[in-house]
Amino acid sequence: MYKINREVLRNISKAEVLIEALPYMRAFTGKYFVVKYGGQAMVNRELMEAVIVDLVLLKYIGVKPVLVHGGGKEVTEVMERMGKKPRFVNGLRVTDDETMEIVEMVLMGKVNQQIVSLFNKQGGKAVGFSGRDAEILQARRLDQQKINGDPEGETVDLGRVGEIIQIDPALIHTVSDNGYIPVLSSIGAGINGESLNINADHVAGELAVALKAEKLIVLTDVDGIYHLREGKQQFISSVNQKEIRAMIMNGEISGGMIPKVESCLMALDGGVRRTHIVDGRVPHSMILEIFTDAGIGTMVKQ
Amino acid sequence: MYKINREVLRNISKAEVLIEALPYMRAFTGKYFVVKYGGQAMVNRELMEAVIVDLVLLKYIGVKPVLVHGGGKEVTEVMERMGKKPRFVNGLRVTDDETMEIVEMVLMGKVNQQIVSLFNKQGGKAVGFSGRDAEILQARRLDQQKINGDPEGETVDLGRVGEIIQIDPALIHTVSDNGYIPVLSSIGAGINGESLNINADHVAGELAVALKAEKLIVLTDVDGIYHLREGKQQFISSVNQKEIRAMIMNGEISGGMIPKVESCLMALDGGVRRTHIVDGRVPHSMILEIFTDAGIGTMVKQ
Amino acid sequence: MYKINREVLRNISKAEVLIEALPYMRAFTGKYFVVKYGGQAMVNRELMEAVIVDLVLLKYIGVKPVLVHGGGKEVTEVMERMGKKPRFVNGLRVTDDETMEIVEMVLMGKVNQQIVSLFNKQGGKAVGFSGRDAEILQARRLDQQKINGDPEGETVDLGRVGEIIQIDPALIHTVSDNGYIPVLSSIGAGINGESLNINADHVAGELAVALKAEKLIVLTDVDGIYHLREGKQQFISSVNQKEIRAMIMNGEISGGMIPKVESCLMALDGGVRRTHIVDGRVPHSMILEIFTDAGIGTMVKQ
Amino acid sequence: MYKINREVLRNISKAEVLIEALPYMRAFTGKYFVVKYGGQAMVNRELMEAVIVDLVLLKYIGVKPVLVHGGGKEVTEVMERMGKKPRFVNGLRVTDDETMEIVEMVLMGKVNQQIVSLFNKQGGKAVGFSGRDAEILQARRLDQQKINGDPEGETVDLGRVGEIIQIDPALIHTVSDNGYIPVLSSIGAGINGESLNINADHVAGELAVALKAEKLIVLTDVDGIYHLREGKQQFISSVNQKEIRAMIMNGEISGGMIPKVESCLMALDGGVRRTHIVDGRVPHSMILEIFTDAGIGTMVKQ
Amino acid sequence: MYKINREVLRNISKAEVLIEALPYMRAFTGKYFVVKYGGQAMVNRELMEAVIVDLVLLKYIGVKPVLVHGGGKEVTEVMERMGKKPRFVNGLRVTDDETMEIVEMVLMGKVNQQIVSLFNKQGGKAVGFSGRDAEILQARRLDQQKINGDPEGETVDLGRVGEIIQIDPALIHTVSDNGYIPVLSSIGAGINGESLNINADHVAGELAVALKAEKLIVLTDVDGIYHLREGKQQFISSVNQKEIRAMIMNGEISGGMIPKVESCLMALDGGVRRTHIVDGRVPHSMILEIFTDAGIGTMVKQ
Amino acid sequence: MYKINREVLRNISKAEVLIEALPYMRAFTGKYFVVKYGGQAMVNRELMEAVIVDLVLLKYIGVKPVLVHGGGKEVTEVMERMGKKPRFVNGLRVTDDETMEIVEMVLMGKVNQQIVSLFNKQGGKAVGFSGRDAEILQARRLDQQKINGDPEGETVDLGRVGEIIQIDPALIHTVSDNGYIPVLSSIGAGINGESLNINADHVAGELAVALKAEKLIVLTDVDGIYHLREGKQQFISSVNQKEIRAMIMNGEISGGMIPKVESCLMALDGGVRRTHIVDGRVPHSMILEIFTDAGIGTMVKQ
Repeated sequence: MYKINREVLRNISKAEVLIEALPYMRAFTGKYFVVKYGGQAMVNRELMEAVIVDLVLLKYIGVKPVLVHGGGKEVTEVMERMGKKPRFVNGLRVTDDETMEIVEMVLMGKVNQQIVSLFNKQGGKAVGFSGRDAEILQARRLDQQKINGDPEGETVDLGRVGEIIQIDPALIHTVSDNGYIPVLSSIGAGINGESLNINADHVAGELAVALKAEKLIVLTDVDGIYHLREGKQQFISSVNQKEIRAMIMNGEISGGMIPKVESCLMALDGGVRRTHIVDGRVPHSMILEIFTDAGIGTMVKQ
Repeated sequence: MYKINREVLRNISKAEVLIEALPYMRAFTGKYFVVKYGGQAMVNRELMEAVIVDLVLLKYIGVKPVLVHGGGKEVTEVMERMGKKPRFVNGLRVTDDETMEIVEMVLMGKVNQQIVSLFNKQGGKAVGFSGRDAEILQARRLDQQKINGDPEGETVDLGRVGEIIQIDPALIHTVSDNGYIPVLSSIGAGINGESLNINADHVAGELAVALKAEKLIVLTDVDGIYHLREGKQQFISSVNQKEIRAMIMNGEISGGMIPKVESCLMALDGGVRRTHIVDGRVPHSMILEIFTDAGIGTMVKQ
Repeated sequence: MYKINREVLRNISKAEVLIEALPYMRAFTGKYFVVKYGGQAMVNRELMEAVIVDLVLLKYIGVKPVLVHGGGKEVTEVMERMGKKPRFVNGLRVTDDETMEIVEMVLMGKVNQQIVSLFNKQGGKAVGFSGRDAEILQARRLDQQKINGDPEGETVDLGRVGEIIQIDPALIHTVSDNGYIPVLSSIGAGINGESLNINADHVAGELAVALKAEKLIVLTDVDGIYHLREGKQQFISSVNQKEIRAMIMNGEISGGMIPKVESCLMALDGGVRRTHIVDGRVPHSMILEIFTDAGIGTMVKQ
Repeated sequence: MYKINREVLRNISKAEVLIEALPYMRAFTGKYFVVKYGGQAMVNRELMEAVIVDLVLLKYIGVKPVLVHGGGKEVTEVMERMGKKPRFVNGLRVTDDETMEIVEMVLMGKVNQQIVSLFNKQGGKAVGFSGRDAEILQARRLDQQKINGDPEGETVDLGRVGEIIQIDPALIHTVSDNGYIPVLSSIGAGINGESLNINADHVAGELAVALKAEKLIVLTDVDGIYHLREGKQQFISSVNQKEIRAMIMNGEISGGMIPKVESCLMALDGGVRRTHIVDGRVPHSMILEIFTDAGIGTMVKQ
Repeated sequence: MYKINREVLRNISKAEVLIEALPYMRAFTGKYFVVKYGGQAMVNRELMEAVIVDLVLLKYIGVKPVLVHGGGKEVTEVMERMGKKPRFVNGLRVTDDETMEIVEMVLMGKVNQQIVSLFNKQGGKAVGFSGRDAEILQARRLDQQKINGDPEGETVDLGRVGEIIQIDPALIHTVSDNGYIPVLSSIGAGINGESLNINADHVAGELAVALKAEKLIVLTDVDGIYHLREGKQQFISSVNQKEIRAMIMNGEISGGMIPKVESCLMALDGGVRRTHIVDGRVPHSMILEIFTDAGIGTMVKQ
Repeated sequence: MYKINREVLRNISKAEVLIEALPYMRAFTGKYFVVKYGGQAMVNRELMEAVIVDLVLLKYIGVKPVLVHGGGKEVTEVMERMGKKPRFVNGLRVTDDETMEIVEMVLMGKVNQQIVSLFNKQGGKAVGFSGRDAEILQARRLDQQKINGDPEGETVDLGRVGEIIQIDPALIHTVSDNGYIPVLSSIGAGINGESLNINADHVAGELAVALKAEKLIVLTDVDGIYHLREGKQQFISSVNQKEIRAMIMNGEISGGMIPKVESCLMALDGGVRRTHIVDGRVPHSMILEIFTDAGIGTMVKQ
């Protein structure tokens, strides 16, 4: 007779979890997931490993993950070490040539390679790219900005800050189709080939469109989007495009959450069906969001 | 602030299970698993569905599963319905032409199609084959047998009972490579193309070799292999080829377990690295055996 | 000098026959021919072999043949052996669950495998399928029927009798392109995956459309279609769609010929250019119909 | 009831001829047949058409035919028209530069294109090549010859007569694999790229080896090989390599038959299994030789 | 320290030339260039070698060159040698059957093979074709002509002179894609497969269209197109379609230049963007025209 | 008549240069060239552009170039800016963790991206890699070193300085075969995935072997190798493996030239046939070395 002991029971529940994941595998196999990664979640090494493991898992069940990263905190840190004081206007880093040099060194020489190395350790065969490689991200400089949008205010030249004109996804396809995981930093190639500093959330949103991705997942260091209902902050599990635009209008969403939501809206406008804002500080939050019905973040859908 | 409630905790542990499965996915992607399926586990519909779900799961994480089945109980049942009395010699069914007709109708027209249908329901795109299709299993009749091997005993002609001469795996490769799951019944093509009744355990063992499978998994209706240690039946989690041959010699293994162990030994001799005898009556036992270190059945290895 | 004896003369006329076939080869290479096979022609083993040889010949000259079969006579025979009495309403077999079990066993476990085996013997590498394999034939149950269409008459539930909703030809393409000859029985997969009994003539007609076949050939056990002209039954070698519809209206065609003609009309409506009703009892009648200008059966064309 | 009249009977016997050809189709599909064509058979237009039809037939049943031709008679004819007197030494044409110009013009500008045109008319998509195209036939000049091999005799420079050093079959493969029938004249490319006149029988023999052909067929204007038995010339249907070498030694074979037999022996030495010397004046003799057991020519085998 | 001597300086300027060619390589890689070759330039062997070297160079930098040739001078020469007097009407050779035989022998057996041989010598792997091979050039006979277009004049049957009905470029694609350089003579296949004599300039123009060529280059034995400006003949480097049509109207272009310009206009009408009339007597004039901004011939553009 | 003026003459000589390059194109098409780039030549922007143009030219004529770079000078410069003093032992940079961070930032975030950008500007579609990407360069730390090899001397731990264990060229093949030019920095992946500083000359030498490269070209800031003959430094255009080993033994080669020569010897030992040490300060020196017989650097051959 067969003895059902505690360990066996535990294993059976393990098997059931795998089985529950099956419909999701069926749905996602062969599709691109673009994952924006940044902020606090990227600083803690243990959390980073959890994120990378999630992406390798996605790879093995047939998803084609692409990771997009910035690296604001690391840039500020190195600038300070080199005795340079960061300045921000309207939430954007004023980027003179010397700052751009530091941005590029930190993003490509530090953050990108660190992520690639974590993938390799987990058996993931990653390849780091900047948007200048094969001119994946073609960009142009932003116009000069009025501080806080005040037409009377000071005019500031943000320097080497850019926005995307066009994305050439051919290199991403080549390496993804050959089994590699692309890791892309948010540096663009300007008209003359010079490097430009681009908002990584925007890169992720537009890349999701260019790759016709199934999902855009924005990993951040808050747990999702809240709104005020009857005097209390209430967590939102799911919201559609129209509703979230209304919330922005009403000032219910603000600060660092704005570019994240914009990234989702870019993707949705371009045909991506589902986007997710997920707390990168919770281990394996991405897997939770993708493979459980409730999820743990906020899903923004069409 | 993020509220960790019970549901979230449960979800987190779910995510961890998926993560734990990752090294197994890495190891098994693109490999064949031959699964022998039969006996009691094949009679209960709920258990059948659990087995099929496991195989579809394997398919989605990159494994190429092939299912081999017999159908002794169903054959006996239909024979009795048709007023025919089954007879067995040395554990083999005496198979006259009329019996063979029933065997083939039951295996191909009932059991095989029922399994295919369960796969389709789970999104698995299965295709049923007999060993006569494209002459996958080329066989010849067994010689006449002495009852119980007793040289003085009665000589019995087993009729249309066969053994494999050669396997042509081309059709299995064609359909597996195109995303289908092959379901093969244990009927062989004799020298003149006539159908022969072959032991399904043997078919599984030899097919695993012909496909250079990573694993052979024999689903049965006992929980694995036991041996007597200090007066008590003790369960064996893992045993090597040499040890198990000794156990057969010593009569520690007997009855219906013999062809299962022989199937494993055929596979191991032919280069398959790991074989498993697993209890098909435990839901998702196959997944437990594959994706947990302890497993729940008996692994027979080289 | 060269001595022309009788044997040489005979051989020369042989060569001429091959040469005459050349324009047909040119026209048909790489095209699908769907062949419906059934009735009396399928009972006599010698005639069966002649049919199979014809199909293997087609394969070798570059045609992609697909054989569709039912098996009414064999089903009735086994039912009677099992003490079950067949019942027909409006020419359709009333198919309760037990009858369906017998239908499936006979078609897949007996008729289909017998045909496959004959192909293998002729070097044809055939593969048997039911419409449940990879859900080639998706079907639904027929509505209840009034006997003889009489609105006042008894209402009969035909049970597991179905009609085709959709055909997925992917598996047929996969095996045909890899050099195999598919042999498909007329069993469909219902909404819940259950088996349904479908009219094999209809299966052939619709499959010809789904495969964009060059020809549909219906092998039957009469020599073709006749009509009454000046008090005499006169054989029709060729008839177009419009004419044959008129003949049905006028009651000139009736009985078992109706579904055969319907099968041809389905195919013609769906774009198949030529369909043939040919006497399967004449050895190599299919070859005669295809490779000679006169043919021996009735061609129904657009 | 079915009326069997005379025409039907004739058609049935036609069908049987096709059926009889089936085992040959099975054996030859996908294989190269190299056919040497020349002499009287190439002068009569009706006979030429019969040869071409045979080759197109082979193409349609899956064989890859390659035709090799010379054109001695046509060369002589044009030379005479241009007031030039041909001279032969040891059976080889003494080929000065002006003669070579005529040889090349006649072979490539007349014979080759005429054959290509006949193929096109039969639906065969032929492509004409000389051995200079893509340097298929790399050759070198023959040494000076003693007349009749007599060491005391006159020494003759044969001029632009060559022998094959190496064959590059890549172009033949390219066009054959894309559905074209190559027609190759027996002109080689000398060390400096100059044209050389090569024996077409030798070209055919060596090409059969380079293509690993299944068969070499030499069409000629006699009906095969005879030997003297009991005072009578007796036709030989089949002979092996050893026997035919003996016959050459004994002087039983002579004249124009020598290079034909040499061609066969070259092919057999290089691994071609069967070679045939067939009378090109009998319509469809090639088909007769290939598709009937007796054949009508002489088969020289290993 | 590094000593810059004269040789080094010369080498440096060599390197610079290669560098200057780079933008042209970028623009032309993978594109077809159709080159019409004929006249005086084809008679001098040294000039021929220069042309061939240019084409091999184009091949190595990624262009797909196709050479089209006629051979009027060689035909006239051989006709005279054979005692036949050439006759021309409206610039077209009156081509009776005997003349056509000579045309075909000279073009395919002499000119075409000579060009192929020169390519091989330069490492170019060329393959000679006539328009009859695989029926590349399907043509029909020209109508009877009035001499000088005079409606009262004598009516002349030009015999085997043809014009193109349709081009099948499949064979050109097959050999080009496999690394060969096609060399096509201006002989077409008539309705019954008979050879027809076609103007080689027209063949080149229409072939450029059928291949969607990047460029048509007409090599001739004048240095390009001139017009009269202020009493002086002035060379034209570049001219558009409209201008050149006007020049033809005004009689500024005449004689042998007419078919060359027509060839360019055919190509331009069919979508070819640039066409060039270049002096084949200047060594490497084709390379000069393609790789330098000024060029040395006349470019006719859309 | 054609007027040959000065410009035409100049153009003709241009064409001749292209023609002269043809045999080299023939020889090198489809082959890998590994180019080591560094030192002074990499600092001057104009020289860098010349180098990049040369590599793009190679790409267009069918070569597969791969560029390997270090960046010692840039590293030292940034270190000094950050107030860190470089230290060298036995010519190797002592690389503590902080230094390694700077090395990686400078190489990947500055030098590599600058090179990639120059390629893009020239139409070259480059992709930057570190040896950590997809673990192209697997490395291990060097053992501790005795200063100057003196066994009595101080023992120094060089820190994160590594040597290559294994090269995985799969990613290089993937991107090269898809039309990209790989640019690889000399950073390796240590056993635990950590970055290691590797000598770029050694990387180039070993990569040439792993890619079975046709050539290794080491661009440096001297004009090649000299030796003392009769009291004078004499330039060496060509030297074989054995001779150069002797020169190292004799102390004729020293300093920074040692690792360059070692790189060549590694490549030659591994089967690369020709290696070149070329002055990167001379514009287009690489093209000169490759496409002219004399060359301008030192060729080290087997």
